[in-house]
Amino acid sequence: MAEMFREHVQTFIDEQVVGREQELDAPDEIPHAIYDAFRAKNLANWWIPRAYGGHGLSLEESVDVVIDLAYADAGLAFAFFLPILSSTPIQLYGTESQRRTYLTEMARSGTFGATMASERVAGSELIRLGTVAEKVDGGFRLNGEKFFSTNAALADYFIVYGAMSGDSARFAAFVVPGNSEGVEILRRWPTVGVRAAGTYEIALRGCSADPPLPGNGLRILEVGLNASRTLMAASAVGIGRRIRDVCLDYARGKEVKGKQLLENDVFGAKIGQMQAELETMASLCRVAARDFDEVMRRPDAPEAFLHIGSLKSVLVAKMMCGQLGGRIAGVGAEALGGLGYTEESVLGKLVRDMRYVAIVEAGEDVLRDLLYVRHTLPAFLGGRR
Amino acid sequence: MAEMFREHVQTFIDEQVVGREQELDAPDEIPHAIYDAFRAKNLANWWIPRAYGGHGLSLEESVDVVIDLAYADAGLAFAFFLPILSSTPIQLYGTESQRRTYLTEMARSGTFGATMASERVAGSELIRLGTVAEKVDGGFRLNGEKFFSTNAALADYFIVYGAMSGDSARFAAFVVPGNSEGVEILRRWPTVGVRAAGTYEIALRGCSADPPLPGNGLRILEVGLNASRTLMAASAVGIGRRIRDVCLDYARGKEVKGKQLLENDVFGAKIGQMQAELETMASLCRVAARDFDEVMRRPDAPEAFLHIGSLKSVLVAKMMCGQLGGRIAGVGAEALGGLGYTEESVLGKLVRDMRYVAIVEAGEDVLRDLLYVRHTLPAFLGGRR
Amino acid sequence: MAEMFREHVQTFIDEQVVGREQELDAPDEIPHAIYDAFRAKNLANWWIPRAYGGHGLSLEESVDVVIDLAYADAGLAFAFFLPILSSTPIQLYGTESQRRTYLTEMARSGTFGATMASERVAGSELIRLGTVAEKVDGGFRLNGEKFFSTNAALADYFIVYGAMSGDSARFAAFVVPGNSEGVEILRRWPTVGVRAAGTYEIALRGCSADPPLPGNGLRILEVGLNASRTLMAASAVGIGRRIRDVCLDYARGKEVKGKQLLENDVFGAKIGQMQAELETMASLCRVAARDFDEVMRRPDAPEAFLHIGSLKSVLVAKMMCGQLGGRIAGVGAEALGGLGYTEESVLGKLVRDMRYVAIVEAGEDVLRDLLYVRHTLPAFLGGRR
Amino acid sequence: MAEMFREHVQTFIDEQVVGREQELDAPDEIPHAIYDAFRAKNLANWWIPRAYGGHGLSLEESVDVVIDLAYADAGLAFAFFLPILSSTPIQLYGTESQRRTYLTEMARSGTFGATMASERVAGSELIRLGTVAEKVDGGFRLNGEKFFSTNAALADYFIVYGAMSGDSARFAAFVVPGNSEGVEILRRWPTVGVRAAGTYEIALRGCSADPPLPGNGLRILEVGLNASRTLMAASAVGIGRRIRDVCLDYARGKEVKGKQLLENDVFGAKIGQMQAELETMASLCRVAARDFDEVMRRPDAPEAFLHIGSLKSVLVAKMMCGQLGGRIAGVGAEALGGLGYTEESVLGKLVRDMRYVAIVEAGEDVLRDLLYVRHTLPAFLGGRR
Ligand SMILES: Cc1cc2nc3c(=O)[nH]c(=O)nc-3n(C[C@H](O)[C@H](O)[C@H](O)COP(=O)(O)OP(=O)(O)OC[C@H]3O[C@@H](n4cnc5c(N)ncnc54)[C@H](O)[C@@H]3O)c2cc1C
Ligand SMILES: Cc1cc2nc3c(=O)[nH]c(=O)nc-3n(C[C@H](O)[C@H](O)[C@H](O)COP(=O)(O)OP(=O)(O)OC[C@H]3O[C@@H](n4cnc5c(N)ncnc54)[C@H](O)[C@@H]3O)c2cc1C
Ligand SMILES: Cc1cc2nc3c(=O)[nH]c(=O)nc-3n(C[C@H](O)[C@H](O)[C@H](O)COP(=O)(O)OP(=O)(O)OC[C@H]3O[C@@H](n4cnc5c(N)ncnc54)[C@H](O)[C@@H]3O)c2cc1C
Ligand SMILES: Cc1cc2nc3c(=O)[nH]c(=O)nc-3n(C[C@H](O)[C@H](O)[C@H](O)COP(=O)(O)OP(=O)(O)OC[C@H]3O[C@@H](n4cnc5c(N)ncnc54)[C@H](O)[C@@H]3O)c2cc1C
Repeated sequence: MAEMFREHVQTFIDEQVVGREQELDAPDEIPHAIYDAFRAKNLANWWIPRAYGGHGLSLEESVDVVIDLAYADAGLAFAFFLPILSSTPIQLYGTESQRRTYLTEMARSGTFGATMASERVAGSELIRLGTVAEKVDGGFRLNGEKFFSTNAALADYFIVYGAMSGDSARFAAFVVPGNSEGVEILRRWPTVGVRAAGTYEIALRGCSADPPLPGNGLRILEVGLNASRTLMAASAVGIGRRIRDVCLDYARGKEVKGKQLLENDVFGAKIGQMQAELETMASLCRVAARDFDEVMRRPDAPEAFLHIGSLKSVLVAKMMCGQLGGRIAGVGAEALGGLGYTEESVLGKLVRDMRYVAIVEAGEDVLRDLLYVRHTLPAFLGGRR
Repeated sequence: MAEMFREHVQTFIDEQVVGREQELDAPDEIPHAIYDAFRAKNLANWWIPRAYGGHGLSLEESVDVVIDLAYADAGLAFAFFLPILSSTPIQLYGTESQRRTYLTEMARSGTFGATMASERVAGSELIRLGTVAEKVDGGFRLNGEKFFSTNAALADYFIVYGAMSGDSARFAAFVVPGNSEGVEILRRWPTVGVRAAGTYEIALRGCSADPPLPGNGLRILEVGLNASRTLMAASAVGIGRRIRDVCLDYARGKEVKGKQLLENDVFGAKIGQMQAELETMASLCRVAARDFDEVMRRPDAPEAFLHIGSLKSVLVAKMMCGQLGGRIAGVGAEALGGLGYTEESVLGKLVRDMRYVAIVEAGEDVLRDLLYVRHTLPAFLGGRR
Repeated sequence: MAEMFREHVQTFIDEQVVGREQELDAPDEIPHAIYDAFRAKNLANWWIPRAYGGHGLSLEESVDVVIDLAYADAGLAFAFFLPILSSTPIQLYGTESQRRTYLTEMARSGTFGATMASERVAGSELIRLGTVAEKVDGGFRLNGEKFFSTNAALADYFIVYGAMSGDSARFAAFVVPGNSEGVEILRRWPTVGVRAAGTYEIALRGCSADPPLPGNGLRILEVGLNASRTLMAASAVGIGRRIRDVCLDYARGKEVKGKQLLENDVFGAKIGQMQAELETMASLCRVAARDFDEVMRRPDAPEAFLHIGSLKSVLVAKMMCGQLGGRIAGVGAEALGGLGYTEESVLGKLVRDMRYVAIVEAGEDVLRDLLYVRHTLPAFLGGRR
Repeated sequence: MAEMFREHVQTFIDEQVVGREQELDAPDEIPHAIYDAFRAKNLANWWIPRAYGGHGLSLEESVDVVIDLAYADAGLAFAFFLPILSSTPIQLYGTESQRRTYLTEMARSGTFGATMASERVAGSELIRLGTVAEKVDGGFRLNGEKFFSTNAALADYFIVYGAMSGDSARFAAFVVPGNSEGVEILRRWPTVGVRAAGTYEIALRGCSADPPLPGNGLRILEVGLNASRTLMAASAVGIGRRIRDVCLDYARGKEVKGKQLLENDVFGAKIGQMQAELETMASLCRVAARDFDEVMRRPDAPEAFLHIGSLKSVLVAKMMCGQLGGRIAGVGAEALGGLGYTEESVLGKLVRDMRYVAIVEAGEDVLRDLLYVRHTLPAFLGGRR
C-alpha cells in the first residue's frame, strides 16, 4: 500500500517536477498547475485516516514520501506535508463534525489547512502571543497579526493559536474556516528557498471562530509539530541525497590528478562522510516517526499526547537533520568548483532550500533548550539516565 | 527476559564496579576478580544462543547491556562483548562439533574467544596479512605475528585470520584451541584507555589448526565485525552518558553568574547538544543491531552474510559514534574547569576510554572509504539513491 | 595617506552603496553608475605604484580597504580588487612600455585588467590548459575557451594564460589588449552571489598577443594570486563583520526569555565566537599581506617571487578565511529566525556572497594539497619544522 | 640576540629533554635535575628586563622560545614560562625595591614566582574570591585556600590575589615571600597532562604580606594574564607541531593502498589542514605578543594596562589556540591507528598535554563571554565595527 503510493508519487514527480527546478525556484507565482496535478492524482494529504477517506499512511511511511518529494523539490514537499500540522489537531482534538468537514475534504479534494502560530515577536516563545480571542455571542472573535503562515492563501481552514482575552497565559487553538471574513493576507513572503511553497503574513481582524479545541493550545501545537517537524527533518534527507547525487554526477565528468574525480580518495572521503550523515538523518526520522505512530495508535492518544507534548526523538531528529543537513549543504556547495557558484547548477537552490530545516518550526537554540529543560534535566534530577 | 538480564548486569555493576574506576584504569593487572564475578554470575557471553545453553539475547538487546556496562567501565564492557567477534564466525560457519565445543563452553563457564586479525603492517588492509597457513598432515600449521588481540591471554580459543600458503590472495579463518602449542604471548599492550581489558601482541610459531571455516576469511571477519562494531558503538553511548552525568553532577555544585551552573543557559545548550548526539548514537546502534538480527534470523543467514559482508548501518553506527563520541568527550573534557584536568575527576579516564571507539576495528578514514566504495558508488552507478 | 584613502572610500560607500544592497544583488546589469563613481573619485586600482601615477597602497593597507568595501558590498569589492591579479604580473614581469601603457591608465582612469586562466576542464589543474599560443609573424596568436573571467567585458587588457603550441607543458602569460579582435564574450554568468561583479565566459579565436611575459606562466599566475587571494580573504572579513552587525542589530530589537537577545548568554557566546574568528581572519590577512609586501620591496622581487610561487601565509589566509567565513555565514543564517529566511533581510545575500571566498581562486581541497605538498612535506623531509 | 637565545634553548632541549618524554609524563616527581640544568644554563625567566640582569626578550620573541620548549615537552614549557604571570605585576606595579629583590634574583638564579588566584569556588569568577587580607600592624595578613598554584612549591615569592577585609568587592595583589610562615602546601595535584610542571593546592593561614600592589587586583591579574595566556597559546603551537611530526614520521613507515601513507591524498589533506591551523595559531600568538610588547614599551605602560585589562588579541589567541589545538589533537589521536592508542607512542601524552591550553587560565566559555562583553558589545553600541 505505502509502496504503491510511493510509486504514484514518483510518477507524479517524473512527470511534473523533474527538470523544472529553476522554475520552481522562481520567487514569483506558486506553481498552481503542479499543485493541481498533485491533488488531481489524489495524492494530497496522504496521511488522512482511511476512516475519513484518506490513504492513511503512517508517519513512518510518510517519511519516505517526503524524502522522495524533497529530492525533487523541497518547496513542493514542504507545501504538501505541512497541512499535517493543521490536520493532526483536528484529528485528535476536533469534534466529529470538524473532522468530517475538514479531514474528509482534505482527503477528497486535497484541500489545505494552514497554521497560524508565530507572530513578529512570538516565534519560538509562543507565550508571548499577541493574538487574542474574545468570547462573543455564538463563539469567539480573533484579533492579531500572524507573521508567517504557509499555504494560508490556499487554505480551506486555519488553526489559529491565540491567548484568551483577559487571561494572557491561557492559550487555545481555534479552527477558522478559510473563507472567514476578517482574515486578511497582507503579503506573500519572498523566501530564500523552498519557493514553490507560499508563506504569508496575515492580519486577523475580528474573524469569528468556533469554541477552541479542548486542551492547552500550546500543547496542541506541540503535538502537531511532532508530525511536521519529523517530516521537515525528512525533507532534509531528500535535499541532502540530491546534493550528494549532484556531486556524484559532476564528479563522473570531471578529471583530477589524472583520473575521474569519482575515483579521487579525497572526494570519496567527502561523499562517504555525507553518506554516513544521510543514513543517520534517515534513521533519526524513522525513529521519531515510529514514536509518533506508536502514540497515535494508543486508544488514549489525545490525552497521552497532551501529556507528552514534544517527543524527545522528534526534537532530536529535527535538530540533528538541521545541523547535518547544513554540513552537507556546506560541503556540497564547494564540490562543483566555480560551476557550483553559478545558477547553471541546481546546487545554489539546494543549498538555500536546505537552510529552511534549521530555521522553520524552531532553530537549534530553541530545540537544544527544549531537550535540556524538558528531557535531560528532569531525568537527571529524577535519577534516571 | 532481556530486561531481567539487564537487571542482573546492573546488580553486578553496582556491587563490583561502581567506585572502582580509578583502579580499573590502572595499567597493571587485569581485574581478574571482577572478570570471575561476571562469569560466576553467569552473565558472560550473553548472546550465545539458547540452543547452546546461552541467554540468547539479540544484538539489539545486547546494545542496552553494553551501554550499561560501558557507563560503568568501558574496559570491562570491551572485554566482555568482544568475544562476540569470535563466536559469531563459529556460530555461522563452524562445524556442529566446533559449536558444541566452544559455544557451549562460552555459555556454561564464560570462556573467552579471541580474534587474531590485525598485524603490524596489516591493520585496516587485511589483504596484506603476513600470517600464513600451510597445509600439513591432519590439518594446517600457522605462522605469523599478530599485533593486537584482545583477551588473548585468557582465551579458550582463537580465530586466526591468515593467507593460504602459496596463494597470498586467499584468506581463511582458522579456529585454534587456546592451549595450542606455538601460540606465544609477546606482551600485554599498555593502552591509553579501556585498561580493564587486556590486549596482547602474539606470535604464532607453527601452531596447528583444523581446516578453516568455509568461506572467504576476510568476509567471515567482516560478518563478525558487524556484531562487535555495533557493540563498540554502543559502548560510546555508555561512556558518553557517563560524561554527561559527570558534567551535570559537577554543575549541580558549581555557581556561575549568581546561579547554579545547571541553570546557566550556555551550559544547558552544551548539554542539550550532547543529549541530541547521545540519542542519535543510541538510535544508530539500535538500527544497526536490528539489521544484524534480521539477517541472523534468516534460514540462509550464513550465505546471506557472506554475500553482504559489512552492513551499511553498522559502518554508519561505528563511524558516527566514533565522531560524536569524540565531540562529547571534547566538550566534557572542559566542562569541569581545572578540576577536570586532574586525576581526581574520572573525566580524564572517560575521555581516554572514548578514544578507542574511533580507532579499534577501523578508524573513520577506513569506514568512510568502505561506505563510499561498497555502498554509495555502486548505488549511484546502478541508478539507485 | 592610507588612512585618508580609506576615508575617501568610506565616503564613496556612504554615498553610493549603503542601502542599495538589494539592487546590487540583482542578477541583471552590472551597476555601471557605481563603477563610474568609484573611478571618477579616483579610487580605482589603489595599489598601482606612485611611479605610475597611482596611490601606491601596500597590500597590507589594501586589506583594510577591501574589508570596508566588502562590508558594504562584496561584489563591488571583488570587482574593484581583482584587477590586482592582472596588474601584478605586468608590474613585475612586463616591459617598461607595457607598464607605462597599462598601469598608468589603470591609475589615471581606473581601467580594468582581467585574467583569463581557468577553463572548463582546467580550473585548479592549470597544467591541463587547452588554450594554445602559436608563434606567428610579429607575435603570437591565441586560441581557446576561458570558462570564467571577471571584469572581462570591461577590461582594458587581459592576461591570458595558455600553453605554447607544440609544447603543452610550457605555459606562458600573454598580455592582450582589451579591444583585440578574436576575443569573444560568450555570456555573463548568473552567479550565486557577488553579483555586482561581472564574470564572463570567453572564446579566444585567434586573437593576437605580444611575446609572453618572461618566466613560467603558471608561476606568474601564482605570484598574482598571492595578491588577489589575500584580498579575497580580506573580503570575507568584511562580509563577516557585516553578518555580525546584522545579527547584533536584530538582537537589539528582539526579546528572548524576558530580556534583549543582545543580553542573552547563548547569543553572546555565539557572537563572541564569531568575533574571535573575525579577528583571526583579519590577522591572517595582515600577516599574508605583510609577507607579500616584504617580497615586493626586495630589489629582486620578480625573480624572488618566481622562485617562491604561492606564499604559505597567503594559502593559509585564503583557506582559513574560506572556512571560518563559511562558519560565520552558517551561524548568521540562523540568527534572525524566520526573518533571516526572507529576502527582507540582507542576510540571504551575505550568506551567498560569503560562499565565493571558498570557491574562487581555489577551494580548500586544492589549497590543503598545495600546503601539504609545497610546504609541509618538503620541510619535513628536509628536517625542518 | 633572541636567535642566539633560542639556540641555547635548543641545545638544552637536545641534551636534557629529547627522548625523555615518557619520564617527563610520569605523575611522580618533578624533574628537578632538568629544572636545575635550565637554571644553571642561565635560561630561566628569559623575559626579565636587562635593567635587572635578564635577557630582556620581548613577548614576541618569547613566543618562539615557548614553541620550541613545548615541542619538546609542554610541562617544562608551562613551568618555565608561567613565572611571567608573577613577574609582570612586579615589573609594572612593584616598588623599586620589590623589583630589585625579585626580578634580579629571577634573572640571576632562575627563581620562580608563583601566582595564587583561583580558588575552589572562584576560578573564572574571581569576584567570588574568599581569600581575605586583613590590615595589621606593619602590613597585611592573608587567610584563604588556593585551589591551584603552579610552581608554588618551588617559588621564591607568590602573588596572592584576595579581597580586602571588610570590603569583599575590593581586590588586591599581594607579594608574599616564598618562605613566609602560614603558607602551607596541601598537596601536589595529579594532573592529566603537563606533568613535568607541579601544580599545588595551598592554604594561607595568616601569612603576612607587604601593602598590596597599587591598583585593582583583578586588573593587575588580567595584565599578567596577557603575557602568560599568549605563551600558553604558543605552547599549543609547539605541541601541535610535534603531533604533526609524529604523524608524518609514522606515515613515512606505513603503507596504504600500495604507497607510503605520506603520499596518500586523504592523509595529505588531513595534514594540510593541520598545517593551516598551526600557521594560524602561530600568527595569532605573534599578533597578541606584539600588542603586548607595544603597550609595554609605552612610558605610561602601567596605567595604560590597568585601563586596557585583557587585550582583545590575547583573548583571541588563547581561545583559538585552545580550539584549534584541540582539533589537531583529535585528528592526531587517530592518525597512528591502533599504535596511537598505546603508550608506546608519545601521542597519548601529547593529546593529554594539549588539553591544558583550553582549560587553564580560562576556558572558551569564559573567553567568549569576555570577548563579547568587553569588546564586541561596547564597539557595537558605540557605533564602531
Ligand atoms: C518559510 C517559512 C514558513 C513558515 N511557516 C509557518 C507557518 O505555517 N505557521 C507558523 O505559525 N509559523 C511559520 N513560520 C515561522 C517559523 O516557525 C519561525 O520563524 C521559527 O520557528 C523561528 O522563530 P522566530 O522567527 O520567531 O525566530 P526565533 O526562534 O525567535 O529566533 C530568533 C533568534 O532568537 C534566538 N533565540 C530564540 N530563542 C532562544 C533561546 N531560548 N536561547 C537562545 N537563543 C534563542 C535564535 O537563536 C535566533 O537567533 C514559517 C517561517 C518560515 C521562514
Ligand atoms: C585496544 C585495542 C584492541 C584491539 N584488539 C584487537 C583484536 O582483538 N583483534 C585484532 O585483530 N585487532 C585488534 N586491534 C587492532 C585494531 O583493530 C586496529 O588497530 C584498527 O583496526 C586500526 O588499524 P591499524 O592500527 O592498522 O591502523 P590503520 O587503520 O592502518 O590506520 C593507520 C593510519 O592509516 C590511515 N589509513 C588507513 N587506511 C586508510 C585509507 N583507506 N585512506 C586513508 N587513510 C588510511 C589511518 O587513517 C591512520 O592514519 C586492537 C587495537 C587496539 C588499540
Ligand atoms: C565568480 C567567479 C569568478 C571567477 N573569476 C575568474 C577570473 O577572473 N579568472 C579566472 O581565470 N578564473 C576565474 N574564476 C574561476 C575560479 O578561479 C575557479 O572556478 C576556481 O579556482 C575553482 O576551480 P574549478 O571551478 O575548476 O573547480 P575545481 O577546483 O577543479 O574543483 C572541482 C572539484 O574538484 C575537486 N578537486 C579539485 N582538485 C582537487 C584535489 N587536488 N584534490 C581533491 N579534490 C580536488 C574540488 O574539491 C571540487 O570538488 C572565477 C570563478 C567564479 C565562480
Ligand atoms: C594544571 C593547572 C595549573 C593551574 N595553575 C594555576 C596557577 O598557577 N594559579 C592560579 O591561580 N590558578 C591556576 N590554575 C587554575 C586555572 O586557571 C583554572 O582552573 C581555570 O581558569 C578554570 O577555572 P575553574 O577551574 O574555576 O573552572 P571554571 O572556569 O569556573 O569552569 C567550570 C565550568 O563552568 C563553566 N563556566 C564558567 N564561567 C562560565 C560562563 N561565564 N558562562 C558559561 N559557563 C561558564 C565552564 O564552562 C565550565 O563548564 C591552574 C589549573 C590547572 C588545571
